[in-house]
Amino acid sequence: MVYLTRREHFNAAHRLHNANWSPEKNEEVFGRCANKNWHGHNYDIWVTVKGEPHPDTGFIMNAKELSLLIKREVVERFDHMNLNMDVPFFTDMQPSTENFVKVIWKLLEPHIRECRLHSIKLQETENIYCEYFGE
Amino acid sequence: MVYLTRREHFNAAHRLHNANWSPEKNEEVFGRCANKNWHGHNYDIWVTVKGEPHPDTGFIMNAKELSLLIKREVVERFDHMNLNMDVPFFTDMQPSTENFVKVIWKLLEPHIRECRLHSIKLQETENIYCEYFGE
Amino acid sequence: MVYLTRREHFNAAHRLHNANWSPEKNEEVFGRCANKNWHGHNYDIWVTVKGEPHPDTGFIMNAKELSLLIKREVVERFDHMNLNMDVPFFTDMQPSTENFVKVIWKLLEPHIRECRLHSIKLQETENIYCEYFGE
Amino acid sequence: MVYLTRREHFNAAHRLHNANWSPEKNEEVFGRCANKNWHGHNYDIWVTVKGEPHPDTGFIMNAKELSLLIKREVVERFDHMNLNMDVPFFTDMQPSTENFVKVIWKLLEPHIRECRLHSIKLQETENIYCEYFGE
Amino acid sequence: MVYLTRREHFNAAHRLHNANWSPEKNEEVFGRCANKNWHGHNYDIWVTVKGEPHPDTGFIMNAKELSLLIKREVVERFDHMNLNMDVPFFTDMQPSTENFVKVIWKLLEPHIRECRLHSIKLQETENIYCEYFGE
Amino acid sequence: MVYLTRREHFNAAHRLHNANWSPEKNEEVFGRCANKNWHGHNYDIWVTVKGEPHPDTGFIMNAKELSLLIKREVVERFDHMNLNMDVPFFTDMQPSTENFVKVIWKLLEPHIRECRLHSIKLQETENIYCEYFGE
Repeated sequence: MVYLTRREHFNAAHRLHNANWSPEKNEEVFGRCANKNWHGHNYDIWVTVKGEPHPDTGFIMNAKELSLLIKREVVERFDHMNLNMDVPFFTDMQPSTENFVKVIWKLLEPHIRECRLHSIKLQETENIYCEYFGE
Repeated sequence: MVYLTRREHFNAAHRLHNANWSPEKNEEVFGRCANKNWHGHNYDIWVTVKGEPHPDTGFIMNAKELSLLIKREVVERFDHMNLNMDVPFFTDMQPSTENFVKVIWKLLEPHIRECRLHSIKLQETENIYCEYFGE
Repeated sequence: MVYLTRREHFNAAHRLHNANWSPEKNEEVFGRCANKNWHGHNYDIWVTVKGEPHPDTGFIMNAKELSLLIKREVVERFDHMNLNMDVPFFTDMQPSTENFVKVIWKLLEPHIRECRLHSIKLQETENIYCEYFGE
Repeated sequence: MVYLTRREHFNAAHRLHNANWSPEKNEEVFGRCANKNWHGHNYDIWVTVKGEPHPDTGFIMNAKELSLLIKREVVERFDHMNLNMDVPFFTDMQPSTENFVKVIWKLLEPHIRECRLHSIKLQETENIYCEYFGE
Repeated sequence: MVYLTRREHFNAAHRLHNANWSPEKNEEVFGRCANKNWHGHNYDIWVTVKGEPHPDTGFIMNAKELSLLIKREVVERFDHMNLNMDVPFFTDMQPSTENFVKVIWKLLEPHIRECRLHSIKLQETENIYCEYFGE
Repeated sequence: MVYLTRREHFNAAHRLHNANWSPEKNEEVFGRCANKNWHGHNYDIWVTVKGEPHPDTGFIMNAKELSLLIKREVVERFDHMNLNMDVPFFTDMQPSTENFVKVIWKLLEPHIRECRLHSIKLQETENIYCEYFGE
């Protein structure tokens, strides 16, 4: 079993805000992340798949196809978007990095056929990232 | 003459959009950067000052004070903000990285007393940055 | 189960030296790391916690609180310190990166309440790091 | 159980090409990686070993010896080489990153005596890397 | 005057070898870089242009167009190529990083119209890079 | 004129302290950097030389020889040392990064024969570096 990881990149705006809370509670919990006019991030995404290298190619999955898949399912959908306003997934869910990795898993997993999806890692700043392994 | 550089970090939302242009022209020139609901970036800023090291300290400027100055004048003002909506500097000016480095120079230069400001470098993504040397 | 990682930074002096050994054996095993007048490192620490995102916040743990916890328990204690001279943990134990990650685990684990501590990663140079998973 | 990782570096030329396939099929599957005159990469390798820190040294394995072992068994063998032409391992196997991590595991594992080899990570570009855990 | 820098990436094989020298002299001067079967690198290229931001766009040059220009003139020409065998520029000139930055300057400079080319920086390994300012 | 840069690495302990000042003034100016038991850093050094590429080699200076020169004159002298205690240069001078780049310039400049030394850049932490251009 070999693990192959491919990195892609996008950037987006978002805001952390709970509509059931007072402004004071939002400020207390989310701090500046609750600012009403949005802020944004450069997101780096690492997608890891696992399987056995095929004798003909030496690949568990063609890294170029993995790149195109991430671009089609993830980058096209989120790049230069407002996660709260433009992305239906986050209508009823905070666009936190924790929730975001689970959304990305669901988008990619059905398209990984020749091997298995192992993990999604999403980096929000150079000091914060989240990972999800599907369970 | 020795050059000292200090890095700080903030993130913000913005949008590139010219109100005098049609939506088609905005799309043609700015692409996804014109999306109406904003997008955002993690910004790294490097501030370089120059001067002679003082014999008592070995410093041309105390790097801790330089850090506090950048935080007070730059990070406090822009971090987690919407550059178009929350920042008066960009009311009549595109919040491009080119214009942004000039704005930051004007904010910092009057406060550098014991040595001289040499340059502002602002990185918008891992592939794009701008620099300004004050002239 | 989602994994959240937060990075912090500190720097410190240390020395690897076994008082039961001859100078020659110390030199042979530890090389320049045994130099009697100390040397030092910039340490990067990554702390990973795991749990389910809370529906109200999207967080498994507030990353800001995780940052403050690491600063209080780890950075305040070790930053700009001499690990051999200033840190009681290393009175009877080598201040190696291996031992250091276990010390940091013990300092942080009792304070992680709302989710679970998963791992401590400590980077000593760009070429060497250690990880500990609590067992 | 503590995990210690050491990074080393080398660069090499290679080509992905299946001699049983037509030029068109090679082009379709491998793209520019099939170019007949080779291309090349800077490879970063991370080797992770695991064990208990020894009370005398605080080490699970001397990182200097781990470095020398990787240099002797891996860097000396592959640095500035053509993987297809100069390296017998790849006579009957694609020099893909997937196959390469398995080759490196076999070269290093017999020499890790005082602790256990945990993983090999090999980075081919800043966007692609593979990992192998020995099974 | 503001400076805008855009990074792109490619990889290639090459060999440093002087046909007028003995194998021993080639080995002495170039070391492993003279290996007859080639080796290779991941190259990072930074292109810096300078000018005044345009009032309509805030740009000195559209970074997307600068990216496309570098891809068309540099990446397309050199990516996954053998610099010695596939690139006419290096028929009579060593494919050293020093010579390479001058070649890239000549390729890009005629196409920079709305502002001026300032510098080419080419990174061969994480420890070595060259820069050229056109004179 | 082409500029060639080579990076090397070392680590060291130091302390910023002015013996003519009270403990309070040292604490006020240098903060934790004045701690009496030392602290330390991983230092990255970039040495830039400039000249014309030689037709026989394509080099302005052999990067391998530049590496060996930096290792002999800089790394051997400072690696794993206490800058205040082990290095005569800093007996009467603060071991600040500002003073350190000037010391390194004086050590290297007499040995650069075939081209000219352009700059020394010394990085103390990921957020602070100094540069010196010899005047």
